[in-house]
Amino acid sequence: MSSELNDPAGFIREHGPATLEWAASYLERVGSLPVLAQVDPGELTAQLPDSPPAQGESFDAVLRDLDAILMPGITHWQHPRYFAYFPSATSGPAILAETLAATINTVSFLWRSSPAATELEGVVLAWVAQLMGLPSGWHGQIEAGGSLATMAAAIAARDATGRNLLVCSQETHSSAAKAARMLGMGLRAVPVDGDGALRVEALGDLKDAAIVVATVGTTSRCAVDPVAAIADACQPAGAWLHVDAAYAGTAMVCPELRPAFEGVERADSLLVNAHKWMLTPIDCSLLWTSRPDVFRTAFSMVPEYLRTPTAEDEWSLHEYGPALGRGFRALKLWAVLRCYGRDGLREHVRAGVQMAQEFETWLVAQDDWELVSPCRFGLVCFRHTGDDEFNQALLERVNGSGEAFLSHTVIDGRFALRLATGGLLTTPADVHQTWQLLSREAAALSS
Amino acid sequence: MSSELNDPAGFIREHGPATLEWAASYLERVGSLPVLAQVDPGELTAQLPDSPPAQGESFDAVLRDLDAILMPGITHWQHPRYFAYFPSATSGPAILAETLAATINTVSFLWRSSPAATELEGVVLAWVAQLMGLPSGWHGQIEAGGSLATMAAAIAARDATGRNLLVCSQETHSSAAKAARMLGMGLRAVPVDGDGALRVEALGDLKDAAIVVATVGTTSRCAVDPVAAIADACQPAGAWLHVDAAYAGTAMVCPELRPAFEGVERADSLLVNAHKWMLTPIDCSLLWTSRPDVFRTAFSMVPEYLRTPTAEDEWSLHEYGPALGRGFRALKLWAVLRCYGRDGLREHVRAGVQMAQEFETWLVAQDDWELVSPCRFGLVCFRHTGDDEFNQALLERVNGSGEAFLSHTVIDGRFALRLATGGLLTTPADVHQTWQLLSREAAALSS
Repeated sequence: MSSELNDPAGFIREHGPATLEWAASYLERVGSLPVLAQVDPGELTAQLPDSPPAQGESFDAVLRDLDAILMPGITHWQHPRYFAYFPSATSGPAILAETLAATINTVSFLWRSSPAATELEGVVLAWVAQLMGLPSGWHGQIEAGGSLATMAAAIAARDATGRNLLVCSQETHSSAAKAARMLGMGLRAVPVDGDGALRVEALGDLKDAAIVVATVGTTSRCAVDPVAAIADACQPAGAWLHVDAAYAGTAMVCPELRPAFEGVERADSLLVNAHKWMLTPIDCSLLWTSRPDVFRTAFSMVPEYLRTPTAEDEWSLHEYGPALGRGFRALKLWAVLRCYGRDGLREHVRAGVQMAQEFETWLVAQDDWELVSPCRFGLVCFRHTGDDEFNQALLERVNGSGEAFLSHTVIDGRFALRLATGGLLTTPADVHQTWQLLSREAAALSS
Repeated sequence: MSSELNDPAGFIREHGPATLEWAASYLERVGSLPVLAQVDPGELTAQLPDSPPAQGESFDAVLRDLDAILMPGITHWQHPRYFAYFPSATSGPAILAETLAATINTVSFLWRSSPAATELEGVVLAWVAQLMGLPSGWHGQIEAGGSLATMAAAIAARDATGRNLLVCSQETHSSAAKAARMLGMGLRAVPVDGDGALRVEALGDLKDAAIVVATVGTTSRCAVDPVAAIADACQPAGAWLHVDAAYAGTAMVCPELRPAFEGVERADSLLVNAHKWMLTPIDCSLLWTSRPDVFRTAFSMVPEYLRTPTAEDEWSLHEYGPALGRGFRALKLWAVLRCYGRDGLREHVRAGVQMAQEFETWLVAQDDWELVSPCRFGLVCFRHTGDDEFNQALLERVNGSGEAFLSHTVIDGRFALRLATGGLLTTPADVHQTWQLLSREAAALSS
């Protein structure tokens, strides 16, 4: 074994500068790379050796193969013209904080196994709750992903209510139905109205419902369920209200965008993925609950080897969720909040919304394009006046160009393209270039 | 908002060197810090502001407060005399790879959303499987934690068998019982023998069992369940066999340590936490299955907005587990495997085992100490000949000194101290210093 590995400080001093330079240069040149990887399934696997090396290699070889082998197979989420799915924006402060977190590499399942990581997680979630205008006193912690957070809420709800039914809308993210399936719970998918919002009058009897999942900003078209009305229905029935604002929740940092979130303050639990629009790399799913005691009852399990004094136990985060071990995820979010501040986050959100609105303006001004769903937050769903096949072919051409990457959905049985802003490097010029690309490819397809 | 935030490349060039220097210097001085944080619950929270800043601050302020406020509250898992729980060792290659992963920040739920991250995950898990001598052809992927991986196996098993009972031993990690509770499954905890191993003859009828969780290296005392005999019992009953080798599994890279794992090759699923003994920072839980089709049936859920061509779908990792989004975790493990190579990993494991064995030798040579459980892998469970109260007080004194950090367990009703090696920076001198510390504090307590 190379002796430099036994001296990690020396290793970092030796190879860290090249790593930083790779990272900086990547962020400078990512806009010149094809957004969507232009490779076939299995192509990368075929290029990698069947076995790891017997003797260790230099980190230089890792950086070299990252460029030579991996890069052509990377779909560039940080590309300024990445508009698919929802954004997952990174940022300078978060990147450097991840370096620090991997160095300290503390595991905060118990309070004592890392008081700082445990308490910082509570503090930064309280900070974000405050920026979002949520009620004070909610218990927040970071989960490994949105699907896991929604599943955790369903477990807590089932434990609290003794019921076994999950209610959501037909447009709720698939993670809700997946949670129900994984947990062996029943599922009721309520119809949506013309805007994709859950129809409250179709909720049905909630007396058997453990949990209702309401969404602010659905994945398909950023529909907004009427959370306040759903809360009105949940309350008398004793059903748990979970709000999934995985993408759109970050918008609450802007007061002018809060009306869409009316009723969220009445949620029993709330999910916002900081790794979507909050400039914090994956994974960093924020889960708050207004009923921490219910979570603790559902998840606390303390074998002898995890027992610590009672005054410590109540801080220990493993008692409030499915996971035991947890890394120092709070550090990156703390770095983002410190370096961006309230105003910086607002600026980032507003820029994304404005770019999406501008795109919408160009689109509605043209006869051969139609809006399938109005711009909400940073998402526009649209299509060319051609048929579904035409629009599918158009999407393939646009994505195949490598110049931009959009995704799709189906709304009311019709194929639609999705353009979601929110990346760190995206500028109005990138949105405009993408609009021109769409127009050009549509013209080429039409001719 | 500071303009430097809009130029992440410039941000990294500006603040990256200080970050690297912080990381390197931390790893140099961590041995001089108190291992267990010497703070009280709430102390850190009280020191942090109630609100995030309105305007962003410089990253220098983050580094400053990391030192001034957070450091006293960090329990140092990379400290050379950290011997509590199980290790979670980081390493130079993994730290730098995390910087790269946070920069690229690709989200590989679908193959197309990051072909390289998707395929690299499969390749590195095949590499590790090969190093461990596992059968070829198993499907491997990285889960966010051991608890989640065991829960995933239980979900797959329930789906495959249509049964609702989880069977484990009384000494199985609490995550198994927690999975059963979260999933609403029944639980049968089978008694263990004098060494802490599951008593096969007490397994009972497995006709109703969905899953049997067998452990190689229990948390309490590194007991080894008789996996081959358990497999013999599972097979005719059609029960799923999940092997939890979260900590000890890494030892399989050493051929001479493989006899303890006899029967693992017959598992339906296997968990090894690379973030314990494999020099990869948290989180990086490796989950293999010999029955990928069962996992896919249990977990595949593809709404329209996630639909891609069939040839791509079968690669998409979200179809094989509970999570949808996933980060580029494979990158850090790849960097570790490349830089350490097979021989480097073996050397690291052997060093940990040898240090634990040496400690055991010193201990058994002294009349006033007793071995509670023989050294297995890198763990020694022991106690002073004083009573439970004495041993508890001893542990508090040792941990309160800040010189070393050990944890405890209860075996056959008696309090025992646990010393687990495996840290990157731990040397034989650190183990010896800890032995002297224990002897000194025991003498002080006795007098």
